[in-house]
Amino acid sequence: MKYVRFRDPAGAIRRGEFENGHVQFANESYSLESDDIDVLAPSDPSKIVCVGRNYAAHIDEMGSETPDRPVLFLKGPNTVAGHGDTVTVPAGKDRIDHEAELGVVVGEQCRHVPESEAMDVVEGFTCLNDLSNRDDQEKEQNWIRGKAFDGAAPMGPVLATPEEVPDDAFVRARVDGETRQDGSLEQLIFPIPELIAEITTYLTLEPGDVIATGTPEGVSPLSDGQTVEIEVEGVGTLENTVRVP
Amino acid sequence: MKYVRFRDPAGAIRRGEFENGHVQFANESYSLESDDIDVLAPSDPSKIVCVGRNYAAHIDEMGSETPDRPVLFLKGPNTVAGHGDTVTVPAGKDRIDHEAELGVVVGEQCRHVPESEAMDVVEGFTCLNDLSNRDDQEKEQNWIRGKAFDGAAPMGPVLATPEEVPDDAFVRARVDGETRQDGSLEQLIFPIPELIAEITTYLTLEPGDVIATGTPEGVSPLSDGQTVEIEVEGVGTLENTVRVP
Repeated sequence: MKYVRFRDPAGAIRRGEFENGHVQFANESYSLESDDIDVLAPSDPSKIVCVGRNYAAHIDEMGSETPDRPVLFLKGPNTVAGHGDTVTVPAGKDRIDHEAELGVVVGEQCRHVPESEAMDVVEGFTCLNDLSNRDDQEKEQNWIRGKAFDGAAPMGPVLATPEEVPDDAFVRARVDGETRQDGSLEQLIFPIPELIAEITTYLTLEPGDVIATGTPEGVSPLSDGQTVEIEVEGVGTLENTVRVP
Repeated sequence: MKYVRFRDPAGAIRRGEFENGHVQFANESYSLESDDIDVLAPSDPSKIVCVGRNYAAHIDEMGSETPDRPVLFLKGPNTVAGHGDTVTVPAGKDRIDHEAELGVVVGEQCRHVPESEAMDVVEGFTCLNDLSNRDDQEKEQNWIRGKAFDGAAPMGPVLATPEEVPDDAFVRARVDGETRQDGSLEQLIFPIPELIAEITTYLTLEPGDVIATGTPEGVSPLSDGQTVEIEVEGVGTLENTVRVP
Protein backbone atom coordinates (compact mmCIF):
# COMPACT_ATOMS: atom_id res chain seq x y z
CA MET A 1 0.00 0.00 0.00
CA LYS A 2 1.02 3.58 -0.66
CA TYR A 3 -0.29 6.67 1.09
CA VAL A 4 -0.01 10.44 0.72
CA ARG A 5 -0.76 12.92 3.48
CA PHE A 6 -2.24 16.19 2.29
CA ARG A 7 -4.29 19.25 3.15
CA ASP A 8 -7.57 19.06 1.26
CA PRO A 9 -9.36 22.03 -0.37
CA ALA A 10 -11.25 22.66 2.91
CA GLY A 11 -7.94 22.85 4.84
CA ALA A 12 -8.34 19.49 6.62
CA ILE A 13 -5.33 17.16 6.91
CA ARG A 14 -6.06 13.75 5.36
CA ARG A 15 -4.15 10.65 4.45
CA GLY A 16 -5.30 9.09 1.19
CA GLU A 17 -4.35 5.97 -0.72
CA PHE A 18 -1.98 6.62 -3.57
CA GLU A 19 -2.48 4.79 -6.87
CA ASN A 20 -1.51 5.64 -10.46
CA GLY A 21 -0.40 9.14 -9.56
CA HIS A 22 -3.63 9.94 -7.75
CA VAL A 23 -4.48 10.39 -4.08
CA GLN A 24 -7.86 9.03 -3.03
CA PHE A 25 -9.74 9.91 0.09
CA ALA A 26 -13.47 9.19 0.63
CA ASN A 27 -15.08 9.88 -2.75
CA GLU A 28 -12.45 12.32 -3.95
CA SER A 29 -9.43 11.73 -6.16
CA TYR A 30 -6.65 14.26 -6.70
CA SER A 31 -3.62 14.27 -8.93
CA LEU A 32 -0.41 14.50 -6.87
CA GLU A 33 0.41 17.72 -8.75
CA SER A 34 -3.06 19.23 -8.35
CA ASP A 35 -3.28 22.80 -7.11
CA ASP A 36 -6.34 21.79 -5.07
CA ILE A 37 -4.27 19.99 -2.47
CA ASP A 38 -1.12 20.75 -0.51
CA VAL A 39 1.02 17.62 -0.26
CA LEU A 40 2.48 17.29 3.24
CA ALA A 41 5.34 15.28 4.69
CA PRO A 42 4.10 11.72 5.36
CA SER A 43 4.11 12.28 9.12
CA ASP A 44 4.56 14.96 11.75
CA PRO A 45 7.67 13.68 13.53
CA SER A 46 8.62 14.69 17.07
CA LYS A 47 12.20 14.04 15.94
CA ILE A 48 14.17 12.73 12.97
CA VAL A 49 16.99 10.43 14.00
CA CYS A 50 19.58 10.49 11.22
CA VAL A 51 22.38 8.10 10.45
CA GLY A 52 25.70 9.27 9.04
CA ARG A 53 28.36 7.22 7.22
CA ASN A 54 26.12 4.27 6.43
CA TYR A 55 27.33 3.62 2.85
CA ALA A 56 31.00 2.66 2.28
CA ALA A 57 31.46 4.66 -0.95
CA HIS A 58 30.08 7.85 0.70
CA ILE A 59 32.50 7.39 3.61
CA ASP A 60 35.33 7.35 1.06
CA GLU A 61 34.16 10.47 -0.75
CA MET A 62 33.89 12.38 2.57
CA GLY A 63 37.32 11.19 3.73
CA SER A 64 35.73 9.60 6.83
CA GLU A 65 36.30 6.26 8.55
CA THR A 66 33.91 3.33 8.76
CA PRO A 67 32.23 3.56 12.17
CA ASP A 68 31.97 0.57 14.54
CA ARG A 69 28.42 1.58 15.44
CA PRO A 70 25.88 3.87 13.75
CA VAL A 71 26.77 7.57 13.66
CA LEU A 72 23.60 9.27 14.92
CA PHE A 73 22.44 12.87 14.78
CA LEU A 74 19.13 14.71 15.22
CA LYS A 75 16.94 17.00 13.16
CA GLY A 76 14.01 18.72 14.90
CA PRO A 77 10.47 19.25 13.59
CA ASN A 78 11.59 22.62 12.15
CA THR A 79 13.49 20.74 9.44
CA VAL A 80 10.41 19.09 7.89
CA ALA A 81 9.44 20.16 4.37
CA GLY A 82 7.02 18.52 1.97
CA HIS A 83 7.08 17.50 -1.68
CA GLY A 84 7.03 20.52 -3.96
CA ASP A 85 8.08 22.98 -1.28
CA THR A 86 10.80 25.49 -2.09
CA VAL A 87 13.43 25.26 0.64
CA THR A 88 15.35 28.42 1.49
CA VAL A 89 18.68 27.42 3.00
CA PRO A 90 20.79 29.59 5.36
CA ALA A 91 22.18 32.67 3.64
CA GLY A 92 25.75 33.22 2.52
CA LYS A 93 26.97 29.62 2.46
CA ASP A 94 29.31 28.26 -0.20
CA ARG A 95 28.24 24.65 -0.22
CA ILE A 96 24.77 23.20 0.35
CA ASP A 97 24.60 19.50 -0.63
CA HIS A 98 21.75 17.11 -1.35
CA GLU A 99 21.84 13.70 0.34
CA ALA A 100 19.37 11.11 -0.99
CA GLU A 101 18.09 8.77 1.73
CA LEU A 102 15.48 6.19 2.55
CA GLY A 103 13.36 7.45 5.45
CA VAL A 104 11.81 4.94 7.83
CA VAL A 105 8.51 6.12 9.34
CA VAL A 106 7.84 4.69 12.81
CA GLY A 107 4.36 3.30 13.46
CA GLU A 108 4.25 2.89 17.21
CA GLN A 109 5.78 4.15 20.42
CA CYS A 110 8.68 1.89 21.24
CA ARG A 111 11.91 1.48 23.22
CA HIS A 112 14.35 -1.41 23.65
CA VAL A 113 13.23 -3.07 20.41
CA PRO A 114 15.24 -6.22 19.57
CA GLU A 115 16.50 -6.52 15.98
CA SER A 116 14.28 -9.53 15.42
CA GLU A 117 11.13 -7.47 16.13
CA ALA A 118 12.29 -4.17 14.66
CA MET A 119 10.29 -4.33 11.44
CA ASP A 120 7.07 -4.60 13.52
CA VAL A 121 7.44 -0.95 14.59
CA VAL A 122 7.93 0.31 11.01
CA GLU A 123 4.90 1.85 9.34
CA GLY A 124 6.59 2.38 6.02
CA PHE A 125 9.27 4.01 3.91
CA THR A 126 9.58 7.43 2.32
CA CYS A 127 12.10 9.51 0.35
CA LEU A 128 14.17 11.99 2.34
CA ASN A 129 16.71 14.65 1.39
CA ASP A 130 19.22 15.25 4.20
CA LEU A 131 20.15 18.78 3.09
CA SER A 132 23.57 19.69 4.45
CA ASN A 133 25.27 23.04 4.90
CA ARG A 134 28.92 21.96 4.70
CA ASP A 135 30.31 25.41 5.59
CA ASP A 136 29.01 25.08 9.12
CA GLN A 137 28.98 21.29 9.44
CA GLU A 138 32.76 21.20 9.09
CA LYS A 139 33.18 23.75 11.86
CA GLU A 140 30.90 22.35 14.56
CA GLN A 141 30.89 19.33 16.87
CA ASN A 142 27.13 18.73 16.65
CA TRP A 143 25.61 19.38 13.23
CA ILE A 144 23.00 21.98 14.16
CA ARG A 145 23.75 24.87 11.81
CA GLY A 146 25.00 22.24 9.35
CA LYS A 147 21.99 19.93 9.24
CA ALA A 148 19.19 21.09 11.56
CA PHE A 149 18.28 24.39 9.87
CA ASP A 150 14.68 25.07 8.82
CA GLY A 151 13.66 22.89 5.88
CA ALA A 152 16.76 20.66 6.02
CA ALA A 153 14.66 17.49 5.78
CA PRO A 154 12.28 17.48 2.80
CA MET A 155 10.43 14.15 2.81
CA GLY A 156 7.63 12.37 0.99
CA PRO A 157 5.45 12.49 -0.94
CA VAL A 158 4.66 8.77 -0.56
CA LEU A 159 4.70 6.50 2.47
CA ALA A 160 5.03 2.95 1.11
CA THR A 161 4.50 -0.09 3.32
CA PRO A 162 7.64 -2.26 3.55
CA GLU A 163 6.48 -5.02 1.16
CA GLU A 164 6.40 -2.44 -1.68
CA VAL A 165 10.16 -1.90 -1.45
CA PRO A 166 12.69 -4.52 -2.61
CA ASP A 167 15.69 -5.30 -0.37
CA ASP A 168 18.01 -3.95 -3.07
CA ALA A 169 15.91 -0.88 -3.88
CA PHE A 170 17.85 1.91 -5.56
CA VAL A 171 18.23 5.29 -3.83
CA ARG A 172 18.86 8.08 -6.32
CA ALA A 173 19.29 11.84 -6.49
CA ARG A 174 18.88 13.89 -9.62
CA VAL A 175 19.66 17.60 -9.87
CA ASP A 176 17.85 19.38 -12.70
CA GLY A 177 17.29 15.94 -14.21
CA GLU A 178 20.91 14.76 -14.03
CA THR A 179 21.67 11.70 -11.89
CA ARG A 180 24.13 12.46 -9.09
CA GLN A 181 23.57 9.62 -6.61
CA ASP A 182 22.64 6.03 -7.43
CA GLY A 183 23.00 3.60 -4.53
CA SER A 184 21.18 0.54 -3.27
CA LEU A 185 19.75 -0.38 0.11
CA GLU A 186 21.88 -3.52 -0.09
CA GLN A 187 24.92 -1.29 0.53
CA LEU A 188 23.76 -0.16 4.00
CA ILE A 189 26.51 -0.86 6.55
CA PHE A 190 23.98 -0.96 9.40
CA PRO A 191 20.65 -2.33 8.12
CA ILE A 192 17.30 -0.98 9.35
CA PRO A 193 16.65 -3.50 12.17
CA GLU A 194 20.10 -2.85 13.61
CA LEU A 195 19.48 0.93 13.49
CA ILE A 196 16.16 0.59 15.29
CA ALA A 197 17.66 -1.66 17.98
CA GLU A 198 20.58 0.73 18.57
CA ILE A 199 18.50 3.93 18.60
CA THR A 200 15.87 2.49 20.97
CA THR A 201 18.58 1.42 23.42
CA TYR A 202 18.72 5.14 24.27
CA LEU A 203 15.64 6.93 22.87
CA THR A 204 11.92 6.21 22.75
CA LEU A 205 10.58 6.51 19.21
CA GLU A 206 7.09 7.93 18.74
CA PRO A 207 4.54 7.25 15.97
CA GLY A 208 5.51 9.44 13.02
CA ASP A 209 9.16 9.73 14.02
CA VAL A 210 11.50 9.21 11.10
CA ILE A 211 14.86 7.46 10.82
CA ALA A 212 17.01 8.77 7.94
CA THR A 213 19.19 5.81 7.02
CA GLY A 214 22.20 7.54 5.43
CA THR A 215 23.22 8.51 1.93
CA PRO A 216 25.14 6.76 -0.87
CA GLU A 217 28.07 8.36 -2.71
CA GLY A 218 27.62 11.25 -5.12
CA VAL A 219 26.60 14.14 -2.85
CA SER A 220 27.08 17.41 -4.71
CA PRO A 221 26.51 21.12 -4.26
CA LEU A 222 23.26 22.89 -5.15
CA SER A 223 22.85 26.32 -6.69
CA ASP A 224 20.01 28.75 -6.35
CA GLY A 225 16.91 27.60 -8.20
CA GLN A 226 17.99 24.02 -8.82
CA THR A 227 15.50 21.19 -8.46
CA VAL A 228 16.44 18.04 -6.56
CA GLU A 229 14.61 14.76 -7.00
CA ILE A 230 15.11 11.92 -4.54
CA GLU A 231 13.80 8.62 -5.85
CA VAL A 232 13.58 5.37 -3.92
CA GLU A 233 12.55 2.26 -5.85
CA GLY A 234 9.12 1.06 -4.79
CA VAL A 235 8.37 4.32 -2.97
CA GLY A 236 8.30 7.26 -5.38
CA THR A 237 10.00 10.56 -6.14
CA LEU A 238 10.37 13.60 -3.90
CA GLU A 239 10.97 16.91 -5.65
CA ASN A 240 12.06 20.23 -4.17
CA THR A 241 13.55 23.44 -5.44
CA VAL A 242 16.23 25.11 -3.32
CA ARG A 243 16.65 28.81 -2.82
CA VAL A 244 20.28 29.62 -1.94
CA PRO A 245 20.37 33.27 -0.81
CA MET B 1 5.31 36.16 38.19
CA LYS B 2 5.96 32.48 38.71
CA TYR B 3 4.00 29.62 37.23
CA VAL B 4 3.84 25.85 37.61
CA ARG B 5 2.37 23.49 35.01
CA PHE B 6 0.69 20.45 36.46
CA ARG B 7 -1.85 17.68 35.96
CA ASP B 8 -4.76 18.27 38.33
CA PRO B 9 -6.64 15.53 40.24
CA ALA B 10 -9.07 15.18 37.28
CA GLY B 11 -6.16 14.61 34.88
CA ALA B 12 -6.38 18.00 33.16
CA ILE B 13 -3.20 19.91 32.38
CA ARG B 14 -3.23 23.38 33.99
CA ARG B 15 -0.81 26.23 34.56
CA GLY B 16 -1.23 27.88 37.93
CA GLU B 17 0.40 30.82 39.64
CA PHE B 18 3.09 29.84 42.10
CA GLU B 19 3.32 31.67 45.42
CA ASN B 20 4.71 30.68 48.82
CA GLY B 21 5.23 27.07 47.80
CA HIS B 22 1.67 26.72 46.53
CA VAL B 23 0.23 26.43 43.03
CA GLN B 24 -3.07 28.23 42.51
CA PHE B 25 -5.52 27.61 39.72
CA ALA B 26 -9.14 28.82 39.76
CA ASN B 27 -10.30 28.33 43.36
CA GLU B 28 -7.85 25.53 44.16
CA SER B 29 -4.47 25.70 45.87
CA TYR B 30 -2.01 22.81 45.99
CA SER B 31 1.32 22.41 47.73
CA LEU B 32 4.10 21.77 45.20
CA GLU B 33 4.80 18.48 46.97
CA SER B 34 1.12 17.44 47.11
CA ASP B 35 0.26 13.92 45.97
CA ASP B 36 -2.93 15.34 44.42
CA ILE B 37 -1.06 16.89 41.50
CA ASP B 38 1.61 15.75 39.08
CA VAL B 39 4.09 18.58 38.47
CA LEU B 40 5.02 18.75 34.77
CA ALA B 41 7.86 20.39 32.89
CA PRO B 42 6.99 24.08 32.39
CA SER B 43 6.33 23.55 28.66
CA ASP B 44 6.03 20.86 26.02
CA PRO B 45 8.99 21.76 23.77
CA SER B 46 9.25 20.65 20.14
CA LYS B 47 13.01 20.83 20.70
CA ILE B 48 15.55 21.85 23.32
CA VAL B 49 18.46 23.77 21.85
CA CYS B 50 21.41 23.35 24.19
CA VAL B 51 24.59 25.35 24.51
CA GLY B 52 27.90 23.75 25.42
CA ARG B 53 31.04 25.41 26.80
CA ASN B 54 29.35 28.63 27.88
CA TYR B 55 31.18 29.10 31.22
CA ALA B 56 34.97 29.55 31.18
CA ALA B 57 35.66 27.48 34.31
CA HIS B 58 33.64 24.53 32.95
CA ILE B 59 35.63 24.69 29.70
CA ASP B 60 38.79 24.34 31.79
CA GLU B 61 37.52 21.35 33.77
CA MET B 62 36.50 19.55 30.56
CA GLY B 63 39.83 20.29 28.88
CA SER B 64 38.02 22.10 26.04
CA GLU B 65 38.73 25.34 24.24
CA THR B 66 36.75 28.57 24.34
CA PRO B 67 34.55 28.61 21.25
CA ASP B 68 34.33 31.60 18.93
CA ARG B 69 30.58 31.10 18.60
CA PRO B 70 28.05 29.13 20.67
CA VAL B 71 28.47 25.35 20.65
CA LEU B 72 24.95 24.09 19.92
CA PHE B 73 23.36 20.66 20.27
CA LEU B 74 19.81 19.28 20.36
CA LYS B 75 17.70 17.26 22.75
CA GLY B 76 14.34 15.94 21.50
CA PRO B 77 11.01 15.88 23.34
CA ASN B 78 11.88 12.38 24.62
CA THR B 79 14.40 13.97 26.99
CA VAL B 80 11.84 15.98 28.96
CA ALA B 81 11.30 15.01 32.61
CA GLY B 82 9.50 16.92 35.34
CA HIS B 83 10.25 17.91 38.93
CA GLY B 84 10.14 14.89 41.22
CA ASP B 85 10.46 12.33 38.43
CA THR B 86 12.91 9.50 38.85
CA VAL B 87 15.10 9.41 35.73
CA THR B 88 16.44 6.02 34.64
CA VAL B 89 19.61 6.59 32.63
CA PRO B 90 21.04 4.21 29.99
CA ALA B 91 22.27 0.94 31.52
CA GLY B 92 25.87 -0.07 32.06
CA LYS B 93 27.53 3.36 31.91
CA ASP B 94 30.42 4.38 34.17
CA ARG B 95 29.83 8.09 34.32
CA ILE B 96 26.52 9.98 34.27
CA ASP B 97 26.99 13.66 35.23
CA HIS B 98 24.62 16.38 36.35
CA GLU B 99 24.87 19.78 34.62
CA ALA B 100 23.00 22.66 36.29
CA GLU B 101 21.63 25.16 33.79
CA LEU B 102 19.30 28.08 33.34
CA GLY B 103 16.61 27.11 30.81
CA VAL B 104 15.03 29.83 28.67
CA VAL B 105 11.42 29.08 27.70
CA VAL B 106 10.41 30.62 24.37
CA GLY B 107 7.08 32.44 24.25
CA GLU B 108 6.44 32.92 20.55
CA GLN B 109 7.30 31.50 17.14
CA CYS B 110 10.32 33.38 15.86
CA ARG B 111 13.22 33.40 13.43
CA HIS B 112 15.93 35.96 12.61
CA VAL B 113 15.54 37.72 15.96
CA PRO B 114 18.05 40.55 16.44
CA GLU B 115 19.85 40.66 19.79
CA SER B 116 18.16 43.93 20.66
CA GLU B 117 14.70 42.30 20.46
CA ALA B 118 15.64 38.85 21.77
CA MET B 119 14.19 39.24 25.26
CA ASP B 120 10.77 39.93 23.69
CA VAL B 121 10.48 36.29 22.62
CA VAL B 122 11.34 34.95 26.08
CA GLU B 123 8.43 33.78 28.21
CA GLY B 124 10.53 33.00 31.25
CA PHE B 125 13.29 31.03 32.93
CA THR B 126 13.38 27.61 34.50
CA CYS B 127 15.89 25.19 36.08
CA LEU B 128 17.29 22.48 33.83
CA ASN B 129 19.58 19.52 34.40
CA ASP B 130 21.53 18.62 31.24
CA LEU B 131 22.14 14.98 32.25
CA SER B 132 25.17 13.66 30.36
CA ASN B 133 26.33 10.11 29.70
CA ARG B 134 30.08 10.72 29.35
CA ASP B 135 30.87 7.13 28.29
CA ASP B 136 29.09 7.65 24.98
CA GLN B 137 29.50 11.42 24.64
CA GLU B 138 33.28 11.00 24.41
CA LYS B 139 32.93 8.46 21.62
CA GLU B 140 30.47 10.18 19.29
CA GLN B 141 30.50 13.20 16.99
CA ASN B 142 26.94 14.28 17.75
CA TRP B 143 25.89 13.78 21.38
CA ILE B 144 22.85 11.55 20.90
CA ARG B 145 23.56 8.56 23.13
CA GLY B 146 25.50 11.00 25.33
CA LYS B 147 22.87 13.69 25.87
CA ALA B 148 19.61 12.91 24.02
CA PHE B 149 18.55 9.74 25.86
CA ASP B 150 15.10 9.52 27.46
CA GLY B 151 14.83 11.77 30.52
CA ALA B 152 18.13 13.59 29.87
CA ALA B 153 16.52 17.01 30.39
CA PRO B 154 14.66 17.29 33.69
CA MET B 155 13.27 20.82 33.96
CA GLY B 156 11.04 22.93 36.16
CA PRO B 157 9.17 23.09 38.40
CA VAL B 158 8.83 26.89 38.10
CA LEU B 159 8.69 29.17 35.08
CA ALA B 160 9.70 32.62 36.34
CA THR B 161 9.24 35.71 34.21
CA PRO B 162 12.53 37.49 33.50
CA GLU B 163 12.12 40.33 35.99
CA GLU B 164 12.17 37.76 38.83
CA VAL B 165 15.74 36.73 38.03
CA PRO B 166 18.73 39.00 38.76
CA ASP B 167 21.42 39.40 36.08
CA ASP B 168 23.95 37.76 38.41
CA ALA B 169 21.61 34.96 39.57
CA PHE B 170 23.43 31.92 40.95
CA VAL B 171 23.08 28.55 39.21
CA ARG B 172 23.73 25.67 41.61
CA ALA B 173 23.67 21.90 41.74
CA ARG B 174 23.49 19.87 44.93
CA VAL B 175 23.82 16.09 45.10
CA ASP B 176 22.23 14.53 48.19
CA GLY B 177 22.35 17.99 49.73
CA GLU B 178 26.04 18.69 48.99
CA THR B 179 26.84 21.66 46.72
CA ARG B 180 28.74 20.62 43.58
CA GLN B 181 28.16 23.54 41.19
CA ASP B 182 27.85 27.20 42.11
CA GLY B 183 28.06 29.59 39.15
CA SER B 184 26.50 32.88 38.16
CA LEU B 185 24.70 34.01 35.03
CA GLU B 186 27.23 36.86 34.89
CA GLN B 187 29.81 34.24 33.82
CA LEU B 188 28.00 33.30 30.57
CA ILE B 189 30.38 33.66 27.63
CA PHE B 190 27.46 34.12 25.21
CA PRO B 191 24.58 35.92 26.98
CA ILE B 192 20.96 35.00 26.28
CA PRO B 193 20.20 37.61 23.56
CA GLU B 194 23.29 36.52 21.62
CA LEU B 195 22.21 32.87 21.88
CA ILE B 196 18.71 33.65 20.59
CA ALA B 197 20.05 35.71 17.69
CA GLU B 198 22.52 32.98 16.68
CA ILE B 199 20.07 30.06 16.99
CA THR B 200 17.33 31.84 15.06
CA THR B 201 19.73 32.59 12.22
CA TYR B 202 19.27 28.90 11.39
CA LEU B 203 16.24 27.51 13.26
CA THR B 204 12.71 28.70 13.93
CA LEU B 205 11.89 28.55 17.63
CA GLU B 206 8.37 27.57 18.65
CA PRO B 207 6.38 28.55 21.78
CA GLY B 208 7.48 26.21 24.55
CA ASP B 209 10.88 25.47 23.02
CA VAL B 210 13.69 25.66 25.54
CA ILE B 211 17.24 26.95 25.29
CA ALA B 212 19.61 25.36 27.81
CA THR B 213 22.27 28.00 28.37
CA GLY B 214 25.24 25.88 29.49
CA THR B 215 26.66 24.77 32.81
CA PRO B 216 29.20 26.22 35.24
CA GLU B 217 32.15 24.24 36.63
CA GLY B 218 31.70 21.41 39.11
CA VAL B 219 29.98 18.70 37.06
CA SER B 220 30.30 15.38 38.86
CA PRO B 221 29.18 11.77 38.53
CA LEU B 222 25.93 10.43 39.93
CA SER B 223 25.33 7.06 41.56
CA ASP B 224 22.16 5.02 41.67
CA GLY B 225 19.56 6.53 43.97
CA GLN B 226 21.18 9.93 44.37
CA THR B 227 19.06 13.07 44.37
CA VAL B 228 20.08 16.10 42.33
CA GLU B 229 18.79 19.59 43.01
CA ILE B 230 19.26 22.37 40.46
CA GLU B 231 18.63 25.80 41.93
CA VAL B 232 18.53 29.07 40.02
CA GLU B 233 18.22 32.26 42.04
CA GLY B 234 14.84 33.91 41.51
CA VAL B 235 13.41 30.79 39.87
CA GLY B 236 13.35 27.86 42.28
CA THR B 237 14.69 24.36 42.81
CA LEU B 238 14.31 21.31 40.57
CA GLU B 239 14.74 17.93 42.26
CA ASN B 240 15.15 14.52 40.63
CA THR B 241 16.40 11.13 41.70
CA VAL B 242 18.46 9.15 39.21
CA ARG B 243 18.33 5.43 38.71
CA VAL B 244 21.63 4.18 37.28
CA PRO B 245 21.09 0.56 36.18
